[in-house]
Amino acid sequence: MKIVDIRHITVPIQSDMANAFINFSKMDVSVLAIVTDEVRDGRTVIGYGFNSNGRYAQPGILSHRIIPRVLDSEPDTLVDPETGHLDPGLIWTASMRDEKPGGHGDRAVAVGILDMASWDLAAKLAGISVQQLIAERSPAGIGTANKKVWVYAAGGYYYPDRGIDALQDEMKRYLAMGYRTVKMKIGGASLADDIRRIEAVLSILPDGATLAVDANGRFDTEQAVEYARALEQLPLHWYEEPTDPLDYEALGIVAENYTGVLATGENLLSRHEATNLIRYGGLRSDRDVLQMDSALSYGFTEYQRTLSMLTGYGWDAARCVPHGGHQFNLAIAAGCGLGGSESYPGIFEPFGGFADGDEVQDGFITLPDVPGIGLEEKSSLAPVLAQLGNSN
Amino acid sequence: MKIVDIRHITVPIQSDMANAFINFSKMDVSVLAIVTDEVRDGRTVIGYGFNSNGRYAQPGILSHRIIPRVLDSEPDTLVDPETGHLDPGLIWTASMRDEKPGGHGDRAVAVGILDMASWDLAAKLAGISVQQLIAERSPAGIGTANKKVWVYAAGGYYYPDRGIDALQDEMKRYLAMGYRTVKMKIGGASLADDIRRIEAVLSILPDGATLAVDANGRFDTEQAVEYARALEQLPLHWYEEPTDPLDYEALGIVAENYTGVLATGENLLSRHEATNLIRYGGLRSDRDVLQMDSALSYGFTEYQRTLSMLTGYGWDAARCVPHGGHQFNLAIAAGCGLGGSESYPGIFEPFGGFADGDEVQDGFITLPDVPGIGLEEKSSLAPVLAQLGNSN
Repeated sequence: MKIVDIRHITVPIQSDMANAFINFSKMDVSVLAIVTDEVRDGRTVIGYGFNSNGRYAQPGILSHRIIPRVLDSEPDTLVDPETGHLDPGLIWTASMRDEKPGGHGDRAVAVGILDMASWDLAAKLAGISVQQLIAERSPAGIGTANKKVWVYAAGGYYYPDRGIDALQDEMKRYLAMGYRTVKMKIGGASLADDIRRIEAVLSILPDGATLAVDANGRFDTEQAVEYARALEQLPLHWYEEPTDPLDYEALGIVAENYTGVLATGENLLSRHEATNLIRYGGLRSDRDVLQMDSALSYGFTEYQRTLSMLTGYGWDAARCVPHGGHQFNLAIAAGCGLGGSESYPGIFEPFGGFADGDEVQDGFITLPDVPGIGLEEKSSLAPVLAQLGNSN
Repeated sequence: MKIVDIRHITVPIQSDMANAFINFSKMDVSVLAIVTDEVRDGRTVIGYGFNSNGRYAQPGILSHRIIPRVLDSEPDTLVDPETGHLDPGLIWTASMRDEKPGGHGDRAVAVGILDMASWDLAAKLAGISVQQLIAERSPAGIGTANKKVWVYAAGGYYYPDRGIDALQDEMKRYLAMGYRTVKMKIGGASLADDIRRIEAVLSILPDGATLAVDANGRFDTEQAVEYARALEQLPLHWYEEPTDPLDYEALGIVAENYTGVLATGENLLSRHEATNLIRYGGLRSDRDVLQMDSALSYGFTEYQRTLSMLTGYGWDAARCVPHGGHQFNLAIAAGCGLGGSESYPGIFEPFGGFADGDEVQDGFITLPDVPGIGLEEKSSLAPVLAQLGNSN
């Protein structure tokens, strides 16, 4: 068994929306296919991967460094002798040859794209869903994958010329889709305006539904604490990324001034940074939420090590709710017993969202039970994958 | 005044050497030119930049994100109204538009390349050396640039089939060139073998000459402390990067077990990571050495902010000795009063080293006094720059 080609394309997911830090008018995604010489039921076995939104496609690093190293490897060095299958961990190690420590940025995204494809491939080779492969074989797995995963609807971006009515309508749509928790952006307006926006959304939530708010790392310490004091008065699900993702000291000061739930981690692209968050960020393992996203941070191969680190510090996997809104994080959540997974209904399409036929019910979503991640089960995504070579 | 083009090429600097972490057989560098519509003495004014060794060329991020943003900017937004000149800080801000916080890796390298070219350009437009421009205009500048800068010879890599005699000969060559401090790699052999290599080099050093050792982030905490206890017995200039660059806790434990000088920072690619090093790394401002390299970490535009952060924590600029061995860091050292700059005699050519005619004397090197960085004053580098368009 060997890899015969690794291909990738760059696909736009542009939008006119903005969070407190960036706008998404030039956002794009790399989609990658690992093509093997294996044939199952008359079809070539191919693993697919892509990056989450927010960090751009990686055509350069994939072509220049990551893919050549894997293709130049002796094929046997990528195969697990026990299973006889191409192995995500071995592919990962090959892809990182001659990379220096530190500097976890776009490289972490590029490797995350490849690693998603490796796990999709490994599950297809094993003939089971990736959530079940993870549950059975990963040190972070829970034995039998959960059948459904908690999801929340992340939206509420700032759009040009959009008023509070449109924001309320957006949130009502999410509730109608079956979500019980919605999230909106803050920090792109004044505190007074943001409080008005928040109260307007709270006013239309039915009993039991909740609202989270997300500042996207926008605030300095003083602003973050000012917001914390105002937000503390409101019944929020969580207050997300108040300060720069690497300013652990500032986060700790916010934690001292906010008894509610804090959430952060989507902009920590390595387990080293996640470790420092736990060591220095002042977060509380009884309530706070960790959002590291494997598809932006060296893949699930690395995320397993992050989960192991968390266990060592007394954090439960249930405190993790990854950023990203893609099917792979949903599968990881099901296989590792995470607390849930983000979802962006209707945006970042076709990469966000779920397989056709899986619907949100009372805040939970089921997963496809097919070999691999089930990306081909999403009719909007299948044509993009087909551009890279089709296993169906 | 406006930018008419930004071009870049990828140039190999491969070598068969290795440090404790990577080998350099596929290493390469991006070289970039900012071409303006300004003409001085009949020549188009062009600023040049490149990245330091160790982190690879950045053709993808430059072409995909960084350069288009600058070229798409309204020309006037890149010009300082006071000087009427293209401004490094304004070009920097344009290049980082719509980038999320955190994730400081290859993006920091790509911006560092552009920013070196911006400063070369700014100094050429001002008609003075970049060290003098920095000394006069940067908040981190010392008013009048130093005429000479302390340098040390970094080498002593692991090569296939190379014995201790060849290592000693290499160090003797550096001493003959005028260096008074040499550096060698450790951590690629056993502790006993490394101690033999170190003692062999110490045995050939004349009075007053010193030896530093560099583990390139290879060790876990236990190994790093084991080395610290052994190295403490030897008269070393410094013990460099014992542990992973982001493992501040491990570094702090090493610091508790080593009274000699520690040096680190080349793999911290942002001021945020440098801040965390100072907050959590246990380093001592009376002796330890900080090696952050502007050409790998968002350029001098960001490095100014790093120096300001250090001042706030009571660290003197003289404690900084940047990694990289290139002329721009040498100029920054002269303009900001840093403690010195790294040098790699004969390797990473033609990007390392000094302008023609400047020679090391008693451990110090002079700088060219020409407009810009003086990259064109290095005859081995000039033909590479000429491929991008020649201002001479």
